[in-house]
Amino acid sequence: MNLIDETHDPARRSWIDSANGHAAFPIQNLPLGIFSTASRDRRIGVAIGDQIVDLRGLAEAGLVDDRWLAALVRPTLNDWFAHGPVEGRALRRLLSDLLSGEAQRAAVNPHLVAQADAAMHLPCAIGDYTDFYVGIHHATNVGKQFRPDQPLLPNYKYVPIGYHGRASSVRVSGEPVVRPKGQRKAPEATAPDYGPSRRLDYELELGMFIGRGNDLGQTIPIGQAAAHIAGYCLLNDWSARDIQGWEYQPLGPFLAKNFLTSISPWVVSPDALAPFRRAMPPRPAGDPAPLDYLSDDRDRERGALGVTLDVTLLTKAMRKAGHAPHVLSHGEAAAAMYWSAAQIVTHHASNGCNLMPGDLIGTGTLSTADAGGLGSLMEISAGGKAPLALPNGEVRSFLEDGDELILSAHCEAPGAVAIGFGECRGRVLPAR
Amino acid sequence: MNLIDETHDPARRSWIDSANGHAAFPIQNLPLGIFSTASRDRRIGVAIGDQIVDLRGLAEAGLVDDRWLAALVRPTLNDWFAHGPVEGRALRRLLSDLLSGEAQRAAVNPHLVAQADAAMHLPCAIGDYTDFYVGIHHATNVGKQFRPDQPLLPNYKYVPIGYHGRASSVRVSGEPVVRPKGQRKAPEATAPDYGPSRRLDYELELGMFIGRGNDLGQTIPIGQAAAHIAGYCLLNDWSARDIQGWEYQPLGPFLAKNFLTSISPWVVSPDALAPFRRAMPPRPAGDPAPLDYLSDDRDRERGALGVTLDVTLLTKAMRKAGHAPHVLSHGEAAAAMYWSAAQIVTHHASNGCNLMPGDLIGTGTLSTADAGGLGSLMEISAGGKAPLALPNGEVRSFLEDGDELILSAHCEAPGAVAIGFGECRGRVLPAR
Repeated sequence: MNLIDETHDPARRSWIDSANGHAAFPIQNLPLGIFSTASRDRRIGVAIGDQIVDLRGLAEAGLVDDRWLAALVRPTLNDWFAHGPVEGRALRRLLSDLLSGEAQRAAVNPHLVAQADAAMHLPCAIGDYTDFYVGIHHATNVGKQFRPDQPLLPNYKYVPIGYHGRASSVRVSGEPVVRPKGQRKAPEATAPDYGPSRRLDYELELGMFIGRGNDLGQTIPIGQAAAHIAGYCLLNDWSARDIQGWEYQPLGPFLAKNFLTSISPWVVSPDALAPFRRAMPPRPAGDPAPLDYLSDDRDRERGALGVTLDVTLLTKAMRKAGHAPHVLSHGEAAAAMYWSAAQIVTHHASNGCNLMPGDLIGTGTLSTADAGGLGSLMEISAGGKAPLALPNGEVRSFLEDGDELILSAHCEAPGAVAIGFGECRGRVLPAR
Repeated sequence: MNLIDETHDPARRSWIDSANGHAAFPIQNLPLGIFSTASRDRRIGVAIGDQIVDLRGLAEAGLVDDRWLAALVRPTLNDWFAHGPVEGRALRRLLSDLLSGEAQRAAVNPHLVAQADAAMHLPCAIGDYTDFYVGIHHATNVGKQFRPDQPLLPNYKYVPIGYHGRASSVRVSGEPVVRPKGQRKAPEATAPDYGPSRRLDYELELGMFIGRGNDLGQTIPIGQAAAHIAGYCLLNDWSARDIQGWEYQPLGPFLAKNFLTSISPWVVSPDALAPFRRAMPPRPAGDPAPLDYLSDDRDRERGALGVTLDVTLLTKAMRKAGHAPHVLSHGEAAAAMYWSAAQIVTHHASNGCNLMPGDLIGTGTLSTADAGGLGSLMEISAGGKAPLALPNGEVRSFLEDGDELILSAHCEAPGAVAIGFGECRGRVLPAR
């Protein structure tokens, strides 16, 4: 799994000039997504520099393995992801060769589209979306606000906690965030009322797409779990904290979350991320060992996701004044996952629940241990008790209408060409 | 909405003999489902007596409105349900005429299939499955086991509590129930272990399918909500109580539920149920009035669902001995819904969450106020403290391998021909 091979070679350059030195999409990345243009209906593409390779075009022109044709001409990635990691790696190698070899230029050129001319769509038809809670610093920070003496519940270090989210309201970056209405009850109020959320928040997460699935009633052994992950994206689990606080007992978050979930459009493969894996932080002394079904030395050896996460905020006033977005958080939050991606997958299927190609799984909010990389305003503003002062004099406890929130991610490692995930953006519109 | 018309006429009889006097599927019912046979691939059918009318066959033969053809030749009901209630009613009238008028017999006859020769499938491609918690007696019974002094949480009488379930593991009646494995921790144990659930239970619910949906960011006013419901079925929310008790804090049930949800195959329309509506039980004195967005006099006037629910159990020993299934519960549990189907739909979309045609919504477990109609073994056996004695000497606190659980439902009212839902069955297989 996740071999470092010639596709990662830092010396490899593309004949597409914009790819060389590109912050997100050099030839070492090659993420897949779904795009359309005025003349091309929805189809699979590969990001390279500021261009997209029309993969359906390549496939129909006979430039890929015939056995891949049926999956690569589809308007979603589900069927391709179902092919699994071996063929995924073979496609990556092929694309790396086509886009680096000058001899292929003439054949590939007709299938290039400028990203500026393309609209991006959801990578997959998402059958089920599940959100986990593996960011231990986030879980601790939030838990402290409710239970200062016991921030983490007794199950946290045994169970990768997760719950089902709403698949129909997952949207790609750029979808407007209509402020949701709902029932809100202030602690001192005797009854709730229904109206626009006053505590609209974001949650910084990674998303992962399932590749091959498992049949109902079958499990996914931990040693095989990584091979079921097709790739990663950024995910914003927009959250209305006032609705959440009133509704969530006893069955968990519902309307506080399901009005929208935004993801970045490009799916970064486990292969592209391989050079950036880093040693997993040791399990804190005194923590229980994972139960056997979640335990795998090779999973630990593969390491933590070496992804640096950034969140910036652009308010309406900042936009008018031409200011740059303000950095809300920056850090190695992905390395703070108490449970690995493989453990998440294995746990999800540990009761025989069938995962399907194209299913989306969120990690849960990722925050660093320090205050510089907190993944939500609820943490940054301490639940509204410590509003954040912005450089232009505005303050924020939660998001206001007109605010735009931008998630981004990049990966760096010595001896490797850096790659990025692109962005996941959303601007808040007033309640309807 | 839900007019009583000639399709409900008790004098109306079908030229299909088995329909007349049929306990579930007389000509006054006409539920839709998806079936296949050795010679017919998956398609829409109508249950009538012990037969199925091949609706795709009727449509392709030109016997229905041309505008319906595209939706009626599909292998799921999603597109048809999106047509909405006016066309739903028009199809019901057409089918009632075709199946009662002797003159139509020759034209319809080639499109009849014996139910005994057909396999049933999921009625819809279910995009999202949501489960509610509106059975107030169940919520009270379960709450008492955890909080004797405060069985219902403060939000219960304001918020129709719901959460997202797993769409991929919804299956039609007859799917085996593989006993799930998971993390279980006995109260006195210091740590959990992973193994087969020891407290496997069922939950008796009604399911409803969404017809027309709403766009993301739009709500569904309470006065329009009933028009978004395409029909009803039986639903068994299989539950592993030991897994649930350990995992559900703080984000709600997950692996305790998502290993399987079973539904009955025939979708009974709101029109078929109209004659059986009954006065809603008055809201208990002292209960708060519903907030405005959930309040509608016409919804109250339409009345409660007049559906009698039955649960029976057939153990392996009973099956071997040729005994009939044992009645676990019987009663008017559907009338015990604290929130109506319309209130459920309006609440679900009240934050702009987009409901889609074919989405499945469960009511939550439906129990009667008395001990005769409890909707789960957790209630019947008081969490295992009062095991149930079966007539053959067996006892049950929870389900054992080989047990078969059968949900059924029927509707009766003076002056109306009784109808039924058919069955929702599942037999427990040992853990793998």
